[in-house]
Amino acid sequence: MKKIYLDNNATTCVDEKVLEAMLPFLKENYANPSSMYEPARISAHAIEKARLQVADFLGVQDSKQILFTSCGTESANTAIKGVVAQFGNLETKNHIITTRVEHPCVLSVYENLEKKGYKISYIGVDENGDLDIESLLSKVTEKTILASVMHANNETGAIYPAEKIASEIKKINKNTKIFTDGVQAAGKIPIKLENTNIDFYSISGHKFHAPKGIGALYVKKGNLFEPFMLGGHQENSLRAGTYNTPYIVALGEAAKLASDALPYELSEVKRLRDKLENGILSQLGNAKLNSKAKNRVPNTTNIGFEYIEGELILLYLNELGIYASSGSACTSGSLDPSHVLRAQKVPFTSLHGSIRFSLSRFTTEDDIDYTIEKVPEVIKRLAKISPFQKELNELGL
Amino acid sequence: MKKIYLDNNATTCVDEKVLEAMLPFLKENYANPSSMYEPARISAHAIEKARLQVADFLGVQDSKQILFTSCGTESANTAIKGVVAQFGNLETKNHIITTRVEHPCVLSVYENLEKKGYKISYIGVDENGDLDIESLLSKVTEKTILASVMHANNETGAIYPAEKIASEIKKINKNTKIFTDGVQAAGKIPIKLENTNIDFYSISGHKFHAPKGIGALYVKKGNLFEPFMLGGHQENSLRAGTYNTPYIVALGEAAKLASDALPYELSEVKRLRDKLENGILSQLGNAKLNSKAKNRVPNTTNIGFEYIEGELILLYLNELGIYASSGSACTSGSLDPSHVLRAQKVPFTSLHGSIRFSLSRFTTEDDIDYTIEKVPEVIKRLAKISPFQKELNELGL
Repeated sequence: MKKIYLDNNATTCVDEKVLEAMLPFLKENYANPSSMYEPARISAHAIEKARLQVADFLGVQDSKQILFTSCGTESANTAIKGVVAQFGNLETKNHIITTRVEHPCVLSVYENLEKKGYKISYIGVDENGDLDIESLLSKVTEKTILASVMHANNETGAIYPAEKIASEIKKINKNTKIFTDGVQAAGKIPIKLENTNIDFYSISGHKFHAPKGIGALYVKKGNLFEPFMLGGHQENSLRAGTYNTPYIVALGEAAKLASDALPYELSEVKRLRDKLENGILSQLGNAKLNSKAKNRVPNTTNIGFEYIEGELILLYLNELGIYASSGSACTSGSLDPSHVLRAQKVPFTSLHGSIRFSLSRFTTEDDIDYTIEKVPEVIKRLAKISPFQKELNELGL
Repeated sequence: MKKIYLDNNATTCVDEKVLEAMLPFLKENYANPSSMYEPARISAHAIEKARLQVADFLGVQDSKQILFTSCGTESANTAIKGVVAQFGNLETKNHIITTRVEHPCVLSVYENLEKKGYKISYIGVDENGDLDIESLLSKVTEKTILASVMHANNETGAIYPAEKIASEIKKINKNTKIFTDGVQAAGKIPIKLENTNIDFYSISGHKFHAPKGIGALYVKKGNLFEPFMLGGHQENSLRAGTYNTPYIVALGEAAKLASDALPYELSEVKRLRDKLENGILSQLGNAKLNSKAKNRVPNTTNIGFEYIEGELILLYLNELGIYASSGSACTSGSLDPSHVLRAQKVPFTSLHGSIRFSLSRFTTEDDIDYTIEKVPEVIKRLAKISPFQKELNELGL
């Protein structure tokens, strides 16, 4: 049976070259890089090489600004909780701005802070998924300690102008810290953090062909925060825990490969994504594009199929060996429709039938051709058993 | 050149069988276990198998009590901060009991809580490294929300009666939560948490031949705590972050192998450790045993060499291919002498010359014979350049 993996925003395969780079550190080079003897230096050196690779990937000069973490979730928790613990005050410095379309690993932290008495302003998006930047800027006050806007949305692929937002906010309150969740941007669009006003930027290795369980946090020089993971002296006492040398090496290698592959991502992956999107939309009268933001990462499309149940679409696609998703894997198990699509007011007729297809540099033309052939077949089969026959007939199904 | 690794309390090599078990999850089985399609089920199933293996390893029936984390440090942070966030109150529930000899990943969290206004009682040890349990129990009050005593000490190998301490504390205040740092006990002594009063128990994979970057936390059924890593719905919303399937599988396999190897650890590893210890002590008049607690893990010895500088010993041993340490790798870079040895009042004459040798099931008789031969040579060479000639002469050097 075919296996066509179109859920690369949930996770990616590990690049063979990444595995090759990390394997020696799962075998002979196992010394704790914090130890004093010779073999430990091999590990310590490999870690610093990876730090340079990640700095390069994020377009920053000084690699000391890169902290390794266990995942994107930890990076986000570190930045947000760290800023609040350092600067927060429930009377005078109690305000945070974010968006309605952030990832759960960001929104959950804000919900927790709200319970503790912090005020959170949630900024909405328009029907295309573009952010209401005017509204965002109007919320900044002297009490605003943190603003966080993701760089790219995991569900629709919408790109938000992180750099511009950061500099506009700093013009209003230079003390407001800026955290950007870059997890879905890294590897998909160019990132250059040097000379921006972004203070913290998070990435997750498994979104660009490193393993699951490794992330990084860029912390702009001079930024203070209370460390999240407390313990040993690792990472200049900013992130405790024994170095995960194999995965850190993997992250560095994956960052380098992703930098190298970026031109391919921006041309070829985009071409395949567009082909898939157009192929589906042109064949089905009930297919509506949810990914309508001005700018979008090249690998993602989100399509709503009106009057069809999303879980059934995924089930039927699964049986054909096509793997896609109806939202974030982090919220699976929950039956609530996507908070991202609700924020952009996707009508209920297609909200529950919205499917995200996300490609990678390993997606082939054959994968896309097969998917363009099979998705309409699935939708037409499901249309026959839908209770909305009249509406579907009017849409040509 | 020989390479004799005697620093297994800092980290261990990955067992080849562990690597074999995890590799498919770094290759073809890469789907996000939280996803809905068929390939994700392979990963999800592997995670539940690993959870059963870890539950078995820790002697608990219900594997739902096992949470996977990114390391021992995260496990400790989760337990301590989680209990304090759930039950703490700076007026009425503000007291915590711990020991002076805990690992930095525990002590650092308490130092942080002290700054926030919590009262911490630090219990000392006697000159053998045994804990003052009377004193510990006398500190328990109505305000005591948490008591944490490690199961085995990383530097000396001293075993503390975690289970007994837990039940004695609960007799005084049944609401006091018990956290046991089991990182240095796991794989070295039998652990059976079922029917004990321990509420939280942390382990770290890389101390028993899994990779660095994976840990677990046992949370006894019914115990509430505020989650540390906030985000997605993973681990019943108790620990967010995409599942690190390869390392979770590795942890499960390593736990199983460690259970199987425990009889070997308790007999053969202990025999080799005793041989090393006696071999060194019998040849050197200035060698004093620091590992003198009533009970001790089978793989660890800590020996103080009077009037000799520990860093120099390590440097010379390193040149001979023998890798040991002067304390926790997590505190390396710091020039302070070990807080553990200071707590048991090791005299300054040997405090700075104390070396930990820690074995594993991969340590061979040849390794030990070579070390018994070389350590005295090194100490005698260093004795010649010591400024304490008179004292060393009196000790036969």
